[in-house]
Amino acid sequence: MNKRVMVLGAGHVGNAIARDLHQSGIDVTTADSNKDSLKTLKEIGIKVIPINIQEQSELKKIIKDQDLIVGALPGALGFKMMKFIIESGKNMVDISFCPEDYLQLDELALKMNVSVIADIGVAPGMCNVICGYHHKRMEVKSYKCIVGGLPAKREWPLEYKASWSPIDVIEEYTRPARYIEHGKLVVRPAMSDPELVDFDNIGTLEEWNSDGLRSMIKTMPDIPNMIEKTLRYPGTIEYLRVLRELGFFSTEPVEINGTKVKPIELSSKLLFPRWKLDHGEKEFTVMRITLEGREAGKKKRYIYDLYDEYDKETETSSMARATGYTCTGAVNLLLKGMYTRKGVSAPEFLGEDEENFRFLLNHLSDRGVNYKIRKG
Amino acid sequence: MNKRVMVLGAGHVGNAIARDLHQSGIDVTTADSNKDSLKTLKEIGIKVIPINIQEQSELKKIIKDQDLIVGALPGALGFKMMKFIIESGKNMVDISFCPEDYLQLDELALKMNVSVIADIGVAPGMCNVICGYHHKRMEVKSYKCIVGGLPAKREWPLEYKASWSPIDVIEEYTRPARYIEHGKLVVRPAMSDPELVDFDNIGTLEEWNSDGLRSMIKTMPDIPNMIEKTLRYPGTIEYLRVLRELGFFSTEPVEINGTKVKPIELSSKLLFPRWKLDHGEKEFTVMRITLEGREAGKKKRYIYDLYDEYDKETETSSMARATGYTCTGAVNLLLKGMYTRKGVSAPEFLGEDEENFRFLLNHLSDRGVNYKIRKG
Repeated sequence: MNKRVMVLGAGHVGNAIARDLHQSGIDVTTADSNKDSLKTLKEIGIKVIPINIQEQSELKKIIKDQDLIVGALPGALGFKMMKFIIESGKNMVDISFCPEDYLQLDELALKMNVSVIADIGVAPGMCNVICGYHHKRMEVKSYKCIVGGLPAKREWPLEYKASWSPIDVIEEYTRPARYIEHGKLVVRPAMSDPELVDFDNIGTLEEWNSDGLRSMIKTMPDIPNMIEKTLRYPGTIEYLRVLRELGFFSTEPVEINGTKVKPIELSSKLLFPRWKLDHGEKEFTVMRITLEGREAGKKKRYIYDLYDEYDKETETSSMARATGYTCTGAVNLLLKGMYTRKGVSAPEFLGEDEENFRFLLNHLSDRGVNYKIRKG
Repeated sequence: MNKRVMVLGAGHVGNAIARDLHQSGIDVTTADSNKDSLKTLKEIGIKVIPINIQEQSELKKIIKDQDLIVGALPGALGFKMMKFIIESGKNMVDISFCPEDYLQLDELALKMNVSVIADIGVAPGMCNVICGYHHKRMEVKSYKCIVGGLPAKREWPLEYKASWSPIDVIEEYTRPARYIEHGKLVVRPAMSDPELVDFDNIGTLEEWNSDGLRSMIKTMPDIPNMIEKTLRYPGTIEYLRVLRELGFFSTEPVEINGTKVKPIELSSKLLFPRWKLDHGEKEFTVMRITLEGREAGKKKRYIYDLYDEYDKETETSSMARATGYTCTGAVNLLLKGMYTRKGVSAPEFLGEDEENFRFLLNHLSDRGVNYKIRKG
């Protein structure tokens, strides 16, 4: 009998995940409260369940016969859902990118004897896998990841579109960024330290501090320099810094004609429609990971470059491809019994095993998501 | 008996007006709903009346024995108040800068046999007076006025403080700008056509289109080129253009959790406290008027430069000085019987008479507000 996987969430990325698993012959069901999002999946023969995912009693029923659950929900729902799935005794692969430290659930998952792979998108996700791979094989002295998803058309003033949860985008502009420098934790404001960086096929982008290291701060304490920065078109963060400075991202209610309004709620209403990708809109994902250190007694540097574009044929955004197909790779690792660790795993754990690492790179490459590797 | 003048509005500018008239021996009363604003005036012996100025029956009583009324209210209240004062048969000098065309009230004022001088601040105000003076004496081919009031301390990101009604400041960023080019009316977005301009005592500022010509478009149709631009620190309008573009200055209600909120109302709440001048904060007003044309058969150019700073001694902002003292000059012209036109006058009408023009320049100069004139 085919393996059964339920995908929770039919947004851009959840949609790409469901389609990809379905094409691999897996028995896929997708659950979401938004019937419109489910429609296109139903049309190609994927089972769909319109359901309010936060209603746990209903959810319990529909996941009962599943072999594995994929979490593709907005960040704010992620942690609670992961806990619920673990408590339900189910294996899980998650790309909800919850703000909480999901490694806290490791013990619970071990007790329940289930395997959970969290944060397994592109960044976090493949960047952790790659760092995990080399960390096992060399003394890593510095790790740097710069990453961004951008529309081809630069519409002033934002010059940005989001294929993921827009409230999580604002979070990227407000949550202080943490990085490791000379073995110490450094905390800097989001969007600080902008620097220009050139890419052959794109031109010049701007990298700036965002809080992207997540689990790696905890799992690889021996790497003395670790940083992740986000990429955008040059200059555009200046406007977001101004919005933040003026209080438009604040969650502190302001009284207007006797009603309390959180500025972030109004800003979301005004910004989200502008962040929406048009149907068929060209966009790309770019990531560069640079690892330096000593391997077999010698100085060594590895650079991984990812550049991926919107796929016309499947009408799938590069961000959904790069994130979703890493996730489906992890689903396959679990279903095929290649990754066997119980508990909650950070993606860097998956990179430790040579075979699993190669499997993931090939799985992505088969889908046109190619990491180019330079060694020096 | 001393002449009696009532000042409506005890904001920054109204306050300076009341003090100045009081020092000239005029019997001054100030009315405002804000008791705090009245307190300092009361301390120096000015009569004060706490009153809701929009309650017309109350207002009628208190203006009954006055010789002249000064309107120093926010723009939105200006037109209605001017109409009320005219209907009450009182003379008036106004610096409320209402968005409506106050010249529509000329007929009513003629009928009531009262004199009203409107828009008599710095800009509009003295710039009109100066243009009116030369317009009477030469063929003006072009008139350009650049003007701004700025804090000495440039606080990112706004680098601006307002000593006048903040809602009128936002209006400056949203209302399309009108100017005259080659005899035709041109309408451009507010904040368009930014250009850098240097001042000896300030450095470099940026000028951009704002809707400042007002009455001059109507009263001097024979001047083929007329423009007013606002001055700010370079680059700062970019952020305001972004706020406008993203909808933060919109009056179109947005629904948030079942409540309708106008974005401009939230933006006002967030921006106004940042625009407030601190007590004793240094600021300056700068204006440059350039008039070109033919006089007595020859090409002629006149440049008027105003630079005025916060006055420590009287704790009066330069914007309140430059605006308020022009207004008190006009009050004196009426009280002394030097300006006798009935109806509603635009400030350019005051400039036509040599004696009145010299009186205003001297009145300002006596108070340290100096216009430097270059001829060529």
